[in-house]
Amino acid sequence: MSSTFGKNVKISVSGQSHSPALGVIVDGLPAGFDIDMDALDAFMQRRAPGRNKFSTPRSEADKPEFLSGLVGTTTCGAPLMAIIRNTNTRSADYDNLRDVPRPAHADFTANEKYRGYQDVSGGGHFSGRITAAICIAGGIALQMLKKQGIEVFAHIKRIHGQNAQSPTDYTPDELDRLRQVSAKDFPVYDDEAGERMKSEITKASANGDSVGGVIECAVIGLPVGVGEPMFDGLESRISAAIFAVPAVKGIEFGSGFGCADLYGSEHNDPFYMDENGNIKTKTNNHGGILGGISSGMPLVFRTAIKPTPSIAKRQESVSLSRHENAPLEIKGRHDPCIVQRAVPVIEAVAALTVLDLLIDTPNYNL
Amino acid sequence: MSSTFGKNVKISVSGQSHSPALGVIVDGLPAGFDIDMDALDAFMQRRAPGRNKFSTPRSEADKPEFLSGLVGTTTCGAPLMAIIRNTNTRSADYDNLRDVPRPAHADFTANEKYRGYQDVSGGGHFSGRITAAICIAGGIALQMLKKQGIEVFAHIKRIHGQNAQSPTDYTPDELDRLRQVSAKDFPVYDDEAGERMKSEITKASANGDSVGGVIECAVIGLPVGVGEPMFDGLESRISAAIFAVPAVKGIEFGSGFGCADLYGSEHNDPFYMDENGNIKTKTNNHGGILGGISSGMPLVFRTAIKPTPSIAKRQESVSLSRHENAPLEIKGRHDPCIVQRAVPVIEAVAALTVLDLLIDTPNYNL
Amino acid sequence: MSSTFGKNVKISVSGQSHSPALGVIVDGLPAGFDIDMDALDAFMQRRAPGRNKFSTPRSEADKPEFLSGLVGTTTCGAPLMAIIRNTNTRSADYDNLRDVPRPAHADFTANEKYRGYQDVSGGGHFSGRITAAICIAGGIALQMLKKQGIEVFAHIKRIHGQNAQSPTDYTPDELDRLRQVSAKDFPVYDDEAGERMKSEITKASANGDSVGGVIECAVIGLPVGVGEPMFDGLESRISAAIFAVPAVKGIEFGSGFGCADLYGSEHNDPFYMDENGNIKTKTNNHGGILGGISSGMPLVFRTAIKPTPSIAKRQESVSLSRHENAPLEIKGRHDPCIVQRAVPVIEAVAALTVLDLLIDTPNYNL
Amino acid sequence: MSSTFGKNVKISVSGQSHSPALGVIVDGLPAGFDIDMDALDAFMQRRAPGRNKFSTPRSEADKPEFLSGLVGTTTCGAPLMAIIRNTNTRSADYDNLRDVPRPAHADFTANEKYRGYQDVSGGGHFSGRITAAICIAGGIALQMLKKQGIEVFAHIKRIHGQNAQSPTDYTPDELDRLRQVSAKDFPVYDDEAGERMKSEITKASANGDSVGGVIECAVIGLPVGVGEPMFDGLESRISAAIFAVPAVKGIEFGSGFGCADLYGSEHNDPFYMDENGNIKTKTNNHGGILGGISSGMPLVFRTAIKPTPSIAKRQESVSLSRHENAPLEIKGRHDPCIVQRAVPVIEAVAALTVLDLLIDTPNYNL
Repeated sequence: MSSTFGKNVKISVSGQSHSPALGVIVDGLPAGFDIDMDALDAFMQRRAPGRNKFSTPRSEADKPEFLSGLVGTTTCGAPLMAIIRNTNTRSADYDNLRDVPRPAHADFTANEKYRGYQDVSGGGHFSGRITAAICIAGGIALQMLKKQGIEVFAHIKRIHGQNAQSPTDYTPDELDRLRQVSAKDFPVYDDEAGERMKSEITKASANGDSVGGVIECAVIGLPVGVGEPMFDGLESRISAAIFAVPAVKGIEFGSGFGCADLYGSEHNDPFYMDENGNIKTKTNNHGGILGGISSGMPLVFRTAIKPTPSIAKRQESVSLSRHENAPLEIKGRHDPCIVQRAVPVIEAVAALTVLDLLIDTPNYNL
Repeated sequence: MSSTFGKNVKISVSGQSHSPALGVIVDGLPAGFDIDMDALDAFMQRRAPGRNKFSTPRSEADKPEFLSGLVGTTTCGAPLMAIIRNTNTRSADYDNLRDVPRPAHADFTANEKYRGYQDVSGGGHFSGRITAAICIAGGIALQMLKKQGIEVFAHIKRIHGQNAQSPTDYTPDELDRLRQVSAKDFPVYDDEAGERMKSEITKASANGDSVGGVIECAVIGLPVGVGEPMFDGLESRISAAIFAVPAVKGIEFGSGFGCADLYGSEHNDPFYMDENGNIKTKTNNHGGILGGISSGMPLVFRTAIKPTPSIAKRQESVSLSRHENAPLEIKGRHDPCIVQRAVPVIEAVAALTVLDLLIDTPNYNL
Repeated sequence: MSSTFGKNVKISVSGQSHSPALGVIVDGLPAGFDIDMDALDAFMQRRAPGRNKFSTPRSEADKPEFLSGLVGTTTCGAPLMAIIRNTNTRSADYDNLRDVPRPAHADFTANEKYRGYQDVSGGGHFSGRITAAICIAGGIALQMLKKQGIEVFAHIKRIHGQNAQSPTDYTPDELDRLRQVSAKDFPVYDDEAGERMKSEITKASANGDSVGGVIECAVIGLPVGVGEPMFDGLESRISAAIFAVPAVKGIEFGSGFGCADLYGSEHNDPFYMDENGNIKTKTNNHGGILGGISSGMPLVFRTAIKPTPSIAKRQESVSLSRHENAPLEIKGRHDPCIVQRAVPVIEAVAALTVLDLLIDTPNYNL
Repeated sequence: MSSTFGKNVKISVSGQSHSPALGVIVDGLPAGFDIDMDALDAFMQRRAPGRNKFSTPRSEADKPEFLSGLVGTTTCGAPLMAIIRNTNTRSADYDNLRDVPRPAHADFTANEKYRGYQDVSGGGHFSGRITAAICIAGGIALQMLKKQGIEVFAHIKRIHGQNAQSPTDYTPDELDRLRQVSAKDFPVYDDEAGERMKSEITKASANGDSVGGVIECAVIGLPVGVGEPMFDGLESRISAAIFAVPAVKGIEFGSGFGCADLYGSEHNDPFYMDENGNIKTKTNNHGGILGGISSGMPLVFRTAIKPTPSIAKRQESVSLSRHENAPLEIKGRHDPCIVQRAVPVIEAVAALTVLDLLIDTPNYNL
């Protein structure tokens, strides 16, 4: 097991879908930061279940209880600990999964690794529910970054073949529009595409099926020089954290996989001096990162999210006890699409990683 | 700077393009393994420059000198240290880059981060040349894995819009064919596509331009249970290491970004019991990983490699000293495409990561 | 802040003396271990305050509440999280300490490091109370080790100049006697010396003063080969963890500082073959460790614990606000001696460190 | 194996006593520091063998060759790599030790851990010779600290029962005298005691025996606030690094084990405001550290070094092949006392640890 991450701001994430609580300890947060608890609650609600018809009917308040690390609402330098009680669990729904693993879930691999001792109920520690704990830490990181003039914006880029527009240049107008995306139930930059996406989800749901998508995330306002070369480059650290989020199948920065079809002369982003004497690039195929280090341009990455593996349709699987093929029908309450709920999680993970690396950036005291 | 990686097998990578030598210290290799030095040399040659007309004319033997960690050719439990002398350097080629950073290179970000103290020559520590040091460690890891029945196969999947076939099921015949790919100057599974790719490279080169591509890599023979959940999952650890390789823009596992267009009922890989009583999946959209843990199916991932940023064509940049726009013409010797040379590097990085996680797999003593 | 420790079994410790709760997340515990909750409670009681007249009258049940990581009472491979609520806090006792730091406490250094944002109340995160969280993790580690035939025994070796006997050879009889030491209110191997020690404490207490001492700890039953050379040697890892316990001023292994007065011919422990064909040493100046690696002999170390810094006597200090010297009288409830309460903490820390290294010992599967 | 250390400045140490070379990679050194190579050579000579009649006659120049990390003699932000060739090896001297392990050496434990594959010659990776590699990194760290006004002074405190004086208050005069200690062949603060110590060494040597001792080390000029609570406190980090030095049996900070005999009212160091408005303590039992964090007072610690285990006298051991007791006579060239040579090693280790933590100290940019 390895549910810890970070060098300066270290998080340790705990909890199972149906354990008494989820929790997180965050070690190394700068002291003296006053957390806006209302803003944090609002952020938590963006991920919380039961928010709209596209997510599981399981209802959880997801309100963190802070057990340490604060004096009042201000960080005191000591490790911050927060928990969320699990209240609305129906473990009986999962009884048959101990023997018949769900396709595309960790039931089978966890059973082998933990020799049958894993917590089967609700997917245990492998449940997407664990991301609520990450969001507590990430929600605080987002506030800390914002105070430094750094904002993180994720939005749905694609769902089941339906693509949405993205900002083109992160102009002030586009940033305003991105800020409004966060407040939406369905966080898409381009509402027209959003309607098409919703239709896809509705259609899949009606068929007992599910769909996946792509989330785009931009970090705006990073100074030049954040990130280290090689294994602690921005891409290495962000990708390592992003793949900790269940259901992620890929990540790309800037031009991403599209770079394979371009000439160097097209892909290289020309430098120029802007009117304020800052060095910028005319295009942003590099996605704001050169040599693992931020260039001062928007840091842009995209994450592929697979279709929710829990579907109502009957599936083929095996019986672990009888060593034979066995059909599977999944009970329980599931999301036909988790992409919209994963949007704040991606922001949380990006914020934590950037904050951690920002602390190592010389001349940048938090 | 962070040029160290690994939990059990820890590598520390050092060197600049034009420093006296590159080097690597590998801490934690199991004792008692006899390195096949001929096989290691052959592996190093796959990455070495000057091998064919598609790579830089800079000629380097890239033969590692072992300074510690061995008794004869057998690992002794002590950290292994190996170096490669840089011999064929022409630093004068890089004089102008101190002032005018190359687009899509780390010249600009390194200059800001290290306040002008970075080694400009040949790209310094950010040069692709550093991957030679990784390949020493990775070449040994590949041999150790092979002894455990685990093989790693990378091949060129795409170059500038030209796609090559892949194995479909990793049958014994397909594995034999993959083993032959490694011996090729141009490591492609599908030679007909290889010819089309070579044409693209030749055309770009003739225009003073460059092209990028995609590399596919499969790890075959992994037992079930390798990898840890969350931040030490196979995807997290592999991606963190892969993005340390210069020029990587994206990584995807199994279905990757394609998952965004599938229904759950299509994407979920049905389990079945094979004739030997092993649990397998009918398809492999999960890419051999569920919940960060190996499923026993082939671990498959793809990596996007950008077009070589150093091109002969005149480009737009800025003068750091004069604070104004400035054109750039790059001298020096460069590859019109580095995808073919990156193939063994991807294998090396995958092998090191898998070996590191394998050591943590219970009941698996190396 | 850095309140995390361990490579395989990673603990993250949280809490302040007067925060809502203390907590610990333990990542990497082997799955399938059934925790004896009664034994754990008994272990926690050995450290808990209010147990006898030599400790603070602050009364805390110190009963851990488990929030994740278990199915029933059995570890499931997921991170284990447990908390202890702080109930009996009297923060008003600490109001004056924000301005006038207590000598030999972290009040002053914390104030400088956290720029006044630290939690002053009860010493905040620097309070010895935090060791309760370590004891939860350590109590489980002790049980896991015991199942492997490894036992950890700490006892009071010295208090304010009064020395107690130690076992000489860890014979079966001596081990039985050590097992009984754990059950004592005042855990000393030699009760006669224990009475002299208690007199010293009583005398100090009557004078509004405090005393310190030395704790000896032995780990019995370790196989040969636990520990790694250099920075992950047994001494490096144990000492790093032991100094995390408040009030520790020194640590020595085997002969310790006494080695400075011996000849090599006296200090070298001769090897011999015992009647069962095991290699042992006639003496144990090496304290069971050679080159950082366990030798199979008892691992023995001693830890110096300073006199409790909180004393009733008036002391000299400074006013941080007025920038002048200022007298200090400490209110609150304090232990005249914490050595006896530190005994189980030393056992907990030793057990966690040994368990972590044991997992890396080849052919030793937990 | 674990021969890596550090969070920000990470060292990876490599080499065996008789391998082609020793080496070190240092990742994370601040860029732009110009190394004084003459001063570094002089520092290396303090540890080098063959310097006087009290050390082994094996003669090694111990001059580091820098392979990367520099532009000229200035750090460039890339990992620094340096090696020292082993030239004067006589491996035949060690043939018999494969079968008959030396008492108090790692021969036996290494043989068990590495199943006979360890490098026996000269003690392999467990040899004190490895500290030469640490001294390269540490020598640079000492220069970096000095530029920040921080100096590290170690000297011999005790040898075989003979105690030397120490500075009492680290006054300017005492610091001048400490600076001269470094230049001495026999680095003792108190020359009269030094003569008594030398007599002890001479006497032991004449008898084919050896002696041990204690080294005291002070770090002067540390600002308040260096170090983190709990596991990354100054004591935790320094002790972990110090125990990586072969032959260390104990470490104590400030009052150390002596604290066990004092009342709290004696041991607590009263704070006062000095004439410049700085907060200081009247005594320094806390050794410059409170709660793991530097207080601004001199950081003082002492390290116990065991008698050199390689002695000419016949000893008792066992034959690993014949499973029976066997006498041992050690050939080879050995030091009758290594305390004087360990003095710069202690300084090197302290400097590396302090530099690493200093980088994490807010408002302190290197």
